[in-house]
Amino acid sequence: MNTPKLRLKLRFENGLSLGPGKADLLQGIAAHGSISAAGRRMKMSYKRAWMLVEEMNAAFQMPLVESNRGGQKGGGARLTEAGEAALAHYRELEAITLKEGANHISGITNMLKNVSD
Amino acid sequence: MNTPKLRLKLRFENGLSLGPGKADLLQGIAAHGSISAAGRRMKMSYKRAWMLVEEMNAAFQMPLVESNRGGQKGGGARLTEAGEAALAHYRELEAITLKEGANHISGITNMLKNVSD
Repeated sequence: MNTPKLRLKLRFENGLSLGPGKADLLQGIAAHGSISAAGRRMKMSYKRAWMLVEEMNAAFQMPLVESNRGGQKGGGARLTEAGEAALAHYRELEAITLKEGANHISGITNMLKNVSD
Repeated sequence: MNTPKLRLKLRFENGLSLGPGKADLLQGIAAHGSISAAGRRMKMSYKRAWMLVEEMNAAFQMPLVESNRGGQKGGGARLTEAGEAALAHYRELEAITLKEGANHISGITNMLKNVSD
């Protein structure tokens, strides 16, 4: 069986939860230059995507996402340096879990029935 | 700020998801010797606790939990060797993520506003 999908969520003392949804949204904003486009790719409503961005921006000392609501060019968005850094830390943490924990992950995987059993 | 709470979920190819809920349930069964008692401590219905146990037992080659529904002593349950092993792997994976990923976790934590800000 292949390596399982990992979902990793951190719940911080200040109330912020950071997991795959917010990480994918940040990554989508970096890729598409727009909060609504990033949300759309994730089948997330415009409202929810904005809410998640505002939640993150409020929880960090520096905002993670910089946006122009509307404006002449129709309102783009991009990750700030803080946003790039937070996303990179999260992705590294996922990678470390899969790499350093590989023995334990395969320990469980090898005990499972196969898909076809 | 203290280390955040970690929630780690694995989704395997055979359809099983293994996360903090099932891990805590296994640990509760080991501690209390009963599926319903373990579920109760987690404010989980009797039905849900049983369903999760049956889902795990069906997904693994060997059952993780051995139980006597009813019976003279009122139906106890315990982890099998496979159950102990799966739980241990999961807990080690959590510990490895927190230890080996400590720099990335504190990298994010240090960017956050404090609770009191």
